[in-house]
Amino acid sequence: MKFEEKVLTTKKLFHGVMLDLEIEEVQLPNQQKATREIIRHPGAAAIMPFTSDGRMIFVEQWREPLRRVTYEIPAGKLDQRDATAEDAAWRELNEETGFTSDQLTLVCQFFSSPGFADEQLWLYRADNIRPVEKQLPQDQDEFLRLHPLTLQEAKTKQQEGKICDAKTVIALQQWELAVINNK
Amino acid sequence: MKFEEKVLTTKKLFHGVMLDLEIEEVQLPNQQKATREIIRHPGAAAIMPFTSDGRMIFVEQWREPLRRVTYEIPAGKLDQRDATAEDAAWRELNEETGFTSDQLTLVCQFFSSPGFADEQLWLYRADNIRPVEKQLPQDQDEFLRLHPLTLQEAKTKQQEGKICDAKTVIALQQWELAVINNK
Repeated sequence: MKFEEKVLTTKKLFHGVMLDLEIEEVQLPNQQKATREIIRHPGAAAIMPFTSDGRMIFVEQWREPLRRVTYEIPAGKLDQRDATAEDAAWRELNEETGFTSDQLTLVCQFFSSPGFADEQLWLYRADNIRPVEKQLPQDQDEFLRLHPLTLQEAKTKQQEGKICDAKTVIALQQWELAVINNK
Repeated sequence: MKFEEKVLTTKKLFHGVMLDLEIEEVQLPNQQKATREIIRHPGAAAIMPFTSDGRMIFVEQWREPLRRVTYEIPAGKLDQRDATAEDAAWRELNEETGFTSDQLTLVCQFFSSPGFADEQLWLYRADNIRPVEKQLPQDQDEFLRLHPLTLQEAKTKQQEGKICDAKTVIALQQWELAVINNK
């Protein structure tokens, strides 16, 4: 079976700071036409920051699309300063938490919602984090509170619905698998 | 610390089949103003369909935002026919795989990318699936191939990058945790 769709036309409807919206007209494998609504996003890096006593740092923040506060792992989108996703991960770890580490290890990468968006996420872990010497300024429109949580505390936050985004659910499961596999 | 942002104005820039785009002007906790680019999405249901011999059914399909084929668990967006997310899950399981089950069990729910979208996903598991008596028609613009995979085969597909979306990564990790915890 052939799957590929052929792009007939592309219209850029919106060019924003966070995302772009494009409408494609495509030709399907059966030669019929269809319309695809596509969000273009630069991608993002997310970090699982572990303290030396085995807690992970979560960021509490307002998420306007949801009109509520969430607990998430630190993350931020790639920008023109970043040669690699890891560059963005180092910066966001510093900006959002004030911590750094000896190294970042890539855990996995994934697309957040490939039905309508090309946003890719790179998930890193940072072990034995320590305070940075010089913290980078946070984004001016970001207000954050940090929470170092044990795995059990984090699982409770998920049950309570405070941890509720895909990347942080993936990070939590990775953490649980790592704990089990190291036993 | 106060986190809440106050909505000053909302502009709907695009109303589509899959998603809407809204631009909000908000007042931040420090009284400054900021702009939020927000994708409104009806939400989606996803299913982990297990055969009686312990394989999960994956759907191979073209994802135009990525311009490539992926292996994902069956999923589809909620629409006006659905009183609940579970209604959408039953329909998508039937439409995309031709299987049904005695029951669906909610595994978890999450937001795919709360920085810019309100899309929520409900993830169900369906055990001991069996062929439906009457399969619903697939969406006219969907071309799918089914793959029943063992956990090890699925993990290999993830390493190869064919399994690469957040909901399917979450499903795979849930599966691995369930296998470990039942041992």
